[in-house]
Amino acid sequence: MHMMDTPLLLTSFFSRAERFFHAKKIYSRTSPTTIHEFTYKEFAIRTRKLADALTTLGMDRGIKVGTFAWNHHRHLEAYFAVPCAGAVLHMINIRLAPEHIVYVINHAEDEILLIDENLVPVIAPIVSQLKTVKYFIVMGDAVELQNSPLPNALSYEELLAEASGDFEFPDDIEENAPAGMCYTSATTGMPKGVVYTHRSIVLHSITAGLSDSIAICERDVVLPVVPMFHANAWGLPFASVLFGATQVLPGPMFTPQLLADLIEQYKVTLTAGVPTIWLGVLQAQRQQPRDLSSLRSIICGGSASPIGLVRGFEEEQKIPYFTGYGMTETSPLVSLSTYLSHMENYTADEKMHVRTTQGITMPLLDMRIVNEHGEVPWDGKTMGEITIRGPWIASEYYKDERTAEAFKDGWLYTGDIAVMTPDGYIKITDRTKDLIKSGGEWISSVELENALMTHPKVFEAAVVAIPHEKWLERPLACVVPKPEYKDSITKEELLDSLRTQFHKTWIPDDVVFLDEVPKTSVGKFMKAKLRENLKDYRVKI
Amino acid sequence: MHMMDTPLLLTSFFSRAERFFHAKKIYSRTSPTTIHEFTYKEFAIRTRKLADALTTLGMDRGIKVGTFAWNHHRHLEAYFAVPCAGAVLHMINIRLAPEHIVYVINHAEDEILLIDENLVPVIAPIVSQLKTVKYFIVMGDAVELQNSPLPNALSYEELLAEASGDFEFPDDIEENAPAGMCYTSATTGMPKGVVYTHRSIVLHSITAGLSDSIAICERDVVLPVVPMFHANAWGLPFASVLFGATQVLPGPMFTPQLLADLIEQYKVTLTAGVPTIWLGVLQAQRQQPRDLSSLRSIICGGSASPIGLVRGFEEEQKIPYFTGYGMTETSPLVSLSTYLSHMENYTADEKMHVRTTQGITMPLLDMRIVNEHGEVPWDGKTMGEITIRGPWIASEYYKDERTAEAFKDGWLYTGDIAVMTPDGYIKITDRTKDLIKSGGEWISSVELENALMTHPKVFEAAVVAIPHEKWLERPLACVVPKPEYKDSITKEELLDSLRTQFHKTWIPDDVVFLDEVPKTSVGKFMKAKLRENLKDYRVKI
Repeated sequence: MHMMDTPLLLTSFFSRAERFFHAKKIYSRTSPTTIHEFTYKEFAIRTRKLADALTTLGMDRGIKVGTFAWNHHRHLEAYFAVPCAGAVLHMINIRLAPEHIVYVINHAEDEILLIDENLVPVIAPIVSQLKTVKYFIVMGDAVELQNSPLPNALSYEELLAEASGDFEFPDDIEENAPAGMCYTSATTGMPKGVVYTHRSIVLHSITAGLSDSIAICERDVVLPVVPMFHANAWGLPFASVLFGATQVLPGPMFTPQLLADLIEQYKVTLTAGVPTIWLGVLQAQRQQPRDLSSLRSIICGGSASPIGLVRGFEEEQKIPYFTGYGMTETSPLVSLSTYLSHMENYTADEKMHVRTTQGITMPLLDMRIVNEHGEVPWDGKTMGEITIRGPWIASEYYKDERTAEAFKDGWLYTGDIAVMTPDGYIKITDRTKDLIKSGGEWISSVELENALMTHPKVFEAAVVAIPHEKWLERPLACVVPKPEYKDSITKEELLDSLRTQFHKTWIPDDVVFLDEVPKTSVGKFMKAKLRENLKDYRVKI
Repeated sequence: MHMMDTPLLLTSFFSRAERFFHAKKIYSRTSPTTIHEFTYKEFAIRTRKLADALTTLGMDRGIKVGTFAWNHHRHLEAYFAVPCAGAVLHMINIRLAPEHIVYVINHAEDEILLIDENLVPVIAPIVSQLKTVKYFIVMGDAVELQNSPLPNALSYEELLAEASGDFEFPDDIEENAPAGMCYTSATTGMPKGVVYTHRSIVLHSITAGLSDSIAICERDVVLPVVPMFHANAWGLPFASVLFGATQVLPGPMFTPQLLADLIEQYKVTLTAGVPTIWLGVLQAQRQQPRDLSSLRSIICGGSASPIGLVRGFEEEQKIPYFTGYGMTETSPLVSLSTYLSHMENYTADEKMHVRTTQGITMPLLDMRIVNEHGEVPWDGKTMGEITIRGPWIASEYYKDERTAEAFKDGWLYTGDIAVMTPDGYIKITDRTKDLIKSGGEWISSVELENALMTHPKVFEAAVVAIPHEKWLERPLACVVPKPEYKDSITKEELLDSLRTQFHKTWIPDDVVFLDEVPKTSVGKFMKAKLRENLKDYRVKI
């Protein structure tokens, strides 16, 4: 060994923050009326106390500790107390269906569950089905445990009150030891688990600090709107602690207005969430403008942003709006729509289009868009499936036979269909399963949707395949009109607008008007449900 | 294995640049009159060709390939061709004494030596003593090998002309495999070797891209003045390729004027070198100003910068001037004098003093300043030795018994004496061996030197210990006056200026005027030599 064999551990993030950033602040909204403000020094003490309390309850190496919680400081404490002690943090998606919640807790074999007091009613009806949980630790400012519907319920704050802030984290954890896990929804069947290691989280977090990436730094005030139960909140809590950024955690049940208020109040510089969130914030901002000038970056991911949304932030609000790409299996950051230096000469329109791509791939990752002929040309036209490999990409689903479907020859097959621009930027055109295969041609449902969503009368649009005798599949447009156009909007004006933009074979066979598009627990269009609803639909000629 | 077991390899840097940054430029000054301009695409082809040619000559895994060269594109090609092929790049300091050059080549067992044509005269007299070198590959634009004093001399460009640009780098290198090596001068005896691994170089390079560090990015135009034979040119060539920065390589025998010209001509954004370089550039700039406004950062390391130099760049030239800390054993980046957010409220003077510290420690490293009582308090006063551990810190000297002197209990003992500021910034006060131990008190030679060098009549100053009967050691100031004050400067005015700043026990017992301070091959004061010269000096009372 020529160089020191120092493992890459989350413990080093924690120690760094404790040592250098002890005076920095964390603001945590724990209820609609309460914001808890404390320092990294207090965070470090409380995190050590939590580790001490959990260890006393039996949290040994490799034990799974579930969290069922919004974005707040207690969840952040668990983000470090559990993995730094050598155990595994299982961040449970609180929006899963009850049967899926039961499945993931039993499948992960969580022995301790940290749960928000206001989420107890979600777990209470299914608690008898949870086979492995020994303790429920209820998080809240003034937890009342009398008559709790949970067995073995303990108060988070009472445990901390009795624990030691001098707890020492072990120094012999291996970098490939498991540190965290998330489950991702499957098209069919139960959610699939992904296990993150200390090494993968460390490398992923470091990447978030790169000047050519999210560039998180000590000067930042970070507001993670993306839930901490969704792909590690895109890694922001880990990276914020590593780099000593001020954190603003928005807590439960926030509104677009509240987010805008938080940004203004705490001079947030960096925030991240799905397009639905930013659509809401943009509307709120148009109705009642706050001072959002502190924002240097909005990071958007989860699904593609309509160009109107990007323009709204970039041109109207003068806030750089970055689109990223990733998934639970990829930790998640794979790519981000930062500019390369030669793009400085691009026109405003060209620049805007770069922002709507999923961007350029992060260092240390390999990414190929492949079809049956191998890697597709970088022509912005030829579609293929995104495949990835690298040190923060999963190599398997946890104890799951479906591993073989997605992981082949050392690559993750993402199921996302994309083209590569001549600049080397990913532009997602569809999910494999949503792609419309019409007479041998691939039609991108996402491109049609994005075009429809720029129509002034359209609020949301989803395009799905419907069966067709001759072409096998044909596109059907499902459109939610803006309320004020509900009675005046016509199918023909929508199809006409598409005809100016796409070849005639791409034009949907029909338009169906809906009150809403069904969505997944993380706000994505649930096209499988839409297809299911429309399975008997036939175009009337 | 939950996450992919993707090794951290330099090959991933190379592939990334080849894929995404193929159109970016490298400017390489190969002679006083020639600047070679080419793209990363051509760089990648030439690098593959070099690997092909070297492999044909017997460069197997683990084989040592020496370079004896200035900063230019051929040296950069070797930086990647050798380690990506699984061999080890030994960057030899061309300024070593001949006997040391012989020692390091024989000790490393270099089998191939890449040498600049204009440096052949340095090697020719000692070539018969080199026991392991089988081939000398001479680098230059029009190499003439007839009558070469080197046996088995080959032309770099001729080898490339016959080699294949399709050479495929192996994909089964382990991340802990050796990739590079440098030797560092020892106080006594032969230089000591440090071996870098793929893993250590990858992690170190990623760190250089952090927003809170050097922040190298694709937009940058990087001019490494620090030699590529000195601690990997502080890692800049590796990081520049990883992030796709434009590179400007200054070649042989440059002057301060030439550096200023290069900065102006290529709109350099980031440059790095030792204080002596920047003293020269600042003087050149004052005599004949160029447009240096493209520069966003000057990185300075190797020794402390006098505050006058920092002020000259920051206040006069409006260029941020960062001081870093590191050494061959640390890859080298350990810390950098970036600002923390609370320092925005500092006065101009306080900010300037932050810039003269060695800064805050990089992520993933552990740093402690220790004395006999353990870690010193963060009071900016208590001196101790800097100790470091982390994934890009050496764990040994290559095949060298002196390993035990510096590496203890998993820490590198640097031999540098420093204090820790209340903000957690390192401030070097001395080398262990240069510290003046006067009657049980530690007197910092560096602080006295810095104070002397701010005196308007002083060009350079070094302070060394001289033996003393009562106090064991006492400080002696060795001063090089500015030429215009050579005849008018007095000892008393210098000592008087010190008396206003230091306790009386720190005031040197005498001042000696010199024509120059002896310097090491990398421009540092050679105090051992100074002490040797002055060993018979006695203060006249």
